[in-house]
Amino acid sequence: MRRYFTSTAAVLALMAAPALADDTALREQAKEVFEVIPLSGADIDTIVMTRDRIDLGAMLFFDPRISASGIFSCQSCHNVGIGGVDGLETSIGHGWQKGPRNAPTVLNAVFNIAQFWDGRAPDLAAQAKGPVQAGVEMNNTPDQVTATLKSMDGYVTAFAAAFPGEPDPITFDNFARAIESFEATLITPNARFDQWLMGADGVLTEQEKRGLAVFMDQGCSSCHAGVNFGGQEYYPFGLIERPGGAVLPEGDRGRFAVTETADDEYVFRAAPLRNIAITAPYFHSGVVWDLREAVQIMGTSQLGADLSDTDVDDIVAFLGTLTGEQPEVVHPILPVRTNATPKPNAM
Amino acid sequence: MRRYFTSTAAVLALMAAPALADDTALREQAKEVFEVIPLSGADIDTIVMTRDRIDLGAMLFFDPRISASGIFSCQSCHNVGIGGVDGLETSIGHGWQKGPRNAPTVLNAVFNIAQFWDGRAPDLAAQAKGPVQAGVEMNNTPDQVTATLKSMDGYVTAFAAAFPGEPDPITFDNFARAIESFEATLITPNARFDQWLMGADGVLTEQEKRGLAVFMDQGCSSCHAGVNFGGQEYYPFGLIERPGGAVLPEGDRGRFAVTETADDEYVFRAAPLRNIAITAPYFHSGVVWDLREAVQIMGTSQLGADLSDTDVDDIVAFLGTLTGEQPEVVHPILPVRTNATPKPNAM
Repeated sequence: MRRYFTSTAAVLALMAAPALADDTALREQAKEVFEVIPLSGADIDTIVMTRDRIDLGAMLFFDPRISASGIFSCQSCHNVGIGGVDGLETSIGHGWQKGPRNAPTVLNAVFNIAQFWDGRAPDLAAQAKGPVQAGVEMNNTPDQVTATLKSMDGYVTAFAAAFPGEPDPITFDNFARAIESFEATLITPNARFDQWLMGADGVLTEQEKRGLAVFMDQGCSSCHAGVNFGGQEYYPFGLIERPGGAVLPEGDRGRFAVTETADDEYVFRAAPLRNIAITAPYFHSGVVWDLREAVQIMGTSQLGADLSDTDVDDIVAFLGTLTGEQPEVVHPILPVRTNATPKPNAM
Repeated sequence: MRRYFTSTAAVLALMAAPALADDTALREQAKEVFEVIPLSGADIDTIVMTRDRIDLGAMLFFDPRISASGIFSCQSCHNVGIGGVDGLETSIGHGWQKGPRNAPTVLNAVFNIAQFWDGRAPDLAAQAKGPVQAGVEMNNTPDQVTATLKSMDGYVTAFAAAFPGEPDPITFDNFARAIESFEATLITPNARFDQWLMGADGVLTEQEKRGLAVFMDQGCSSCHAGVNFGGQEYYPFGLIERPGGAVLPEGDRGRFAVTETADDEYVFRAAPLRNIAITAPYFHSGVVWDLREAVQIMGTSQLGADLSDTDVDDIVAFLGTLTGEQPEVVHPILPVRTNATPKPNAM
């Protein structure tokens, strides 16, 4: 009988909500590494967050007429309905050209140290200017963009309101700054992980907590830390063991193209892992569709760790807790073109 | 002094709000030809307008994963932010192919007698199946669409809610029916014309009312009548005088391709004119960008009327009163793909 009683007690202990002591220790460890995502991006003091600025940014973000063809908007590759990405290996752009890298998510991008896989844009405003001009993306020019915007009364009014007091508010710089302000609203708070980190014991399963522990103990969190679980530092991809050429194509030397420093060959910004479960495919090459496989590759290439199947499953379960509340965006009604508006050109 | 007094009185009469008697007569004439747009499409009894059905339709309308490439959604060519069109002469689709005709607006399309320029789809559900399968548009197959939808828990749940009691709710038919329900919400009530037709004298200018009178007196309203100012009947384009080959390309014989009847050569559904001021470019060929020019061409080709510049200006001013309140659509958060979801294929 005693044995039976003991067994029951053991079973009960396993079935109970995670023991307070365990959660507390794990939470203390996690708090040293990660941060809860803020409820808004408004604290970043270089970004003006007026209602007028944000509303203008939303219009620009959704307006395909800023591309030469009239087909692509920011939303095309950073779709707010599917995790801020396009769900493609690499994006398709002007003339059906295939872009060189997987489109990173716009969600929470405001919290990254810099933008693009190689960090070549210091902030979201600088980033916004890139795809507009890239031949394989929107294939447009700053002059054509401002001519387009100036041709429509709705934009003339909206820029004047968003940039009060400026004599000539419709500039390519202001275009980018307004998009940055809107994108700073695209954050995903209240992920289950954040709720747990703030003290809600019951919201993570035992498996998810085991995954968190493995994630920290194995060293994943050495690079994937902070508010965005990454996006803060640069590291060589293939630190321990170089992954296959499909995952890490030889021709794309990463941050080397930005710094032209030998040390930066195949160096990339550590991918931010917020919402990673909903933003497949993975890596800058975009060839890995299964998060499980992505975790295995990271284990081998970055940690030299042969993670057990259970470890991988647990880490994947944990990563699922980083999916936050997706932003609710009302599709803006865009200004009406006039006879002065440049016509789309798909050539 | 008497002369001065008389002149002042005349000027005052001109400046006054439109005389009641004049408006009443014009309004009575207009009421015999046109209808105020309803506040919802819910009266159409073949379309189920439950919240679940509409919400599912919104998800499908905005989901690029229903195209083979993963790039195009219904929204791509029927953008709710720019009048329900794409603002291109003819749409660009899979592989950067150029479609054969200008994309008609989805706004108020529920009130048209049939869909497409040649009316080949009897309703919005039938229409929705077209672009998905067209090689120059989404280049997908019904089987691939349903496989895609079945692979995502979010769609499994949403279809079950939208089609309660059905053992296998994810079908290509139901996909189309849900999109139809959502599209039936995309209507634009309370245009200034509607307000005026309902009795608000002050909302139309004298020029706009002159334009309305010319529109009816010259016979435009013979074809462009009813709730949608068109969309109800089929007519030969070039009834009196054939427009140039750019506007009416010889290779596109219109409704002839549907009925194979000689009488239907170069016959098209009269374009609905609601929101026409914001849906350039014009005609099935999409080559005319200026509404003024479009009105002139219609006058010559359909009426044999050499409209005066003033008449054309007045008609264009009147057409501007048909722009209604644009629908406010929250961009849906779409279901998350799984490893079973077919991958995008841009080939």
